[in-house]
Amino acid sequence: MSAPVTISVDAMGGDHAPDVVVEGVRLAHVRLPHVRYLLFGDEGRVAPLLERHPELSGVCTVRHTDESVSNDAKPSQVLRTGRRSSMWLAVDAVAKGEAAGVVSAGNTGALMAVSKFVLRTLPGIDRPAIAGMFPTERGETVMLDLGANVDCDANNLVQFAVMGEVFARAVLGLEQPTIGLLNVGSEELKGNDAVKTAANTLRESQLPIRFHGFVEGNDICAGTVDVVVTDGFTGNIALKTAEGTVRLYSTCIKQAFRNSILAKIGFVFARQALHKVKVRTDPRRYNGAMFLGLNGIAVKSHGGTDAFGFANAIGVAVDLVTHGYNDRIRHEFERLNAAAPAPSQSAAGNG
Amino acid sequence: MSAPVTISVDAMGGDHAPDVVVEGVRLAHVRLPHVRYLLFGDEGRVAPLLERHPELSGVCTVRHTDESVSNDAKPSQVLRTGRRSSMWLAVDAVAKGEAAGVVSAGNTGALMAVSKFVLRTLPGIDRPAIAGMFPTERGETVMLDLGANVDCDANNLVQFAVMGEVFARAVLGLEQPTIGLLNVGSEELKGNDAVKTAANTLRESQLPIRFHGFVEGNDICAGTVDVVVTDGFTGNIALKTAEGTVRLYSTCIKQAFRNSILAKIGFVFARQALHKVKVRTDPRRYNGAMFLGLNGIAVKSHGGTDAFGFANAIGVAVDLVTHGYNDRIRHEFERLNAAAPAPSQSAAGNG
Repeated sequence: MSAPVTISVDAMGGDHAPDVVVEGVRLAHVRLPHVRYLLFGDEGRVAPLLERHPELSGVCTVRHTDESVSNDAKPSQVLRTGRRSSMWLAVDAVAKGEAAGVVSAGNTGALMAVSKFVLRTLPGIDRPAIAGMFPTERGETVMLDLGANVDCDANNLVQFAVMGEVFARAVLGLEQPTIGLLNVGSEELKGNDAVKTAANTLRESQLPIRFHGFVEGNDICAGTVDVVVTDGFTGNIALKTAEGTVRLYSTCIKQAFRNSILAKIGFVFARQALHKVKVRTDPRRYNGAMFLGLNGIAVKSHGGTDAFGFANAIGVAVDLVTHGYNDRIRHEFERLNAAAPAPSQSAAGNG
Repeated sequence: MSAPVTISVDAMGGDHAPDVVVEGVRLAHVRLPHVRYLLFGDEGRVAPLLERHPELSGVCTVRHTDESVSNDAKPSQVLRTGRRSSMWLAVDAVAKGEAAGVVSAGNTGALMAVSKFVLRTLPGIDRPAIAGMFPTERGETVMLDLGANVDCDANNLVQFAVMGEVFARAVLGLEQPTIGLLNVGSEELKGNDAVKTAANTLRESQLPIRFHGFVEGNDICAGTVDVVVTDGFTGNIALKTAEGTVRLYSTCIKQAFRNSILAKIGFVFARQALHKVKVRTDPRRYNGAMFLGLNGIAVKSHGGTDAFGFANAIGVAVDLVTHGYNDRIRHEFERLNAAAPAPSQSAAGNG
């Protein structure tokens, strides 16, 4: 049996909170019976939802607060005035050691700002990144940054590469994950300064990383590498472009099956097979963006997800905790600092 | 009957040149009988291919050259030593007025460099952009830049917006096309400096443009706006991510239909409907990236395309010629210069 893990939850974050959050906790509980939950939010709304599920009474504790972070709140404003919000308190529970990780479906920018402020970044890491999983032709690929940093220099990209590499080893269990740097072409002379400099550093440094080189947009879904590294602007747009493309394609398929009698008959026979495709490409399965590089586990669920998606985000947090991701990455950066110029130092020009 | 149009063709550009190029010309000739072709390349290889199709003898002229541009040639090297290459000569035919537009499936960077050098940019435009069409839930959307400029400032983005707007009106026939700026979120405070400044200019300027505001990656395929504007780094990655996603999705569908007897039966009934989806999302249909902002029409075909795709690229060039795109955009920039601070001047701070 797994050791108990406590996850703190922002019960008021997301478009359908707290209902979807509590229902997500219930679904997660079925799969992960060893996990305990600290739910931060309006007790008057959360407690009645919990009461409907007696099986949760032993694993959930509600901590009341009236305040929550709205979806359109500016991160800076939340940092100034949001200390009593359900989001802040949930993150703070990790800083205090009451929980091993936090999950929120609230305002991404605010969650990143609060997590950075409350948890701080790990030694050797300048900026945390948002990482997520993509389905590929070969299995799954992790990509970062998906939107935490709209402007990244070469140094940030190198740190993201290390963070992604450790993630792939620690959480995905890959022995020698390959790392690719997202670019407009695979030739060495292409790309902007940040990616070219980062590629040189990754190629020439003593980092124990299998650097594949540059990859292009189509390599993400092809599964050319295990870890795709990019800045948060490009990564966020690539992620959402892929989501939009899946939506367009499945709309086309649905329309096609409605358009003729023959196709309708075909659908009856193919229903189960098509359902499998839907399951495999279901964005809810990939819900749960990980904030990597922080001194604590934080996972952002999609704001509009349902309970199934929220339960997956909880699963992601539990995975990171169980595999000791943060200890591994802390250890890795210490080793890098000892063995070779650390990525964060090399950019400053010293050794 | 349409007036005759002459297109110059780099017969040696692309992975399967000159075979696919000549076959592409043949397919284009069926659809566009009023078009004449100047084919630049190795006469010893091109002429025998043409001889197989007597119907082409009246519409094709071969101009011999031994030289061609390799796929891995650096643009700077081609600018120095490539003046006798089939690519250069084909572009030069447009500059000399012998052809109304050029199509090449060769090295993108070299084609852009040569086109810029030989054709020059239109007045008021600092940098040309690569534009392409995307299938969407509502029809089609044009996106630019798809890779000509890895670093773009706000001013470039504003010029791209004008170029895209004129394209949508002149070539797509839309009366009041909407323009969106690709960003990581639709809120005004998000994004990097270039997109924020460009958005302010587009919002506040007197430009006769329907500026929708920011759009996200998923808005491309949703068809939220008619024109999506972005820098060449992000645009190229979004384009290739979409292509990779379509490939993954169709692989999943194919596998699903092979995995059970029931699904195989379903496939027999649904074959025609699925074929329609394949046709609608066929990347060859969207082949033909337009180099906008140049003093002449230049279209880049995908290097690995087949004859069907190459014929579509020819069709794109003919469309741009027939709709007088360049005259429209020249006129538009003149009008802007007269009516309001032109985008290229506003950044320099004068009126």
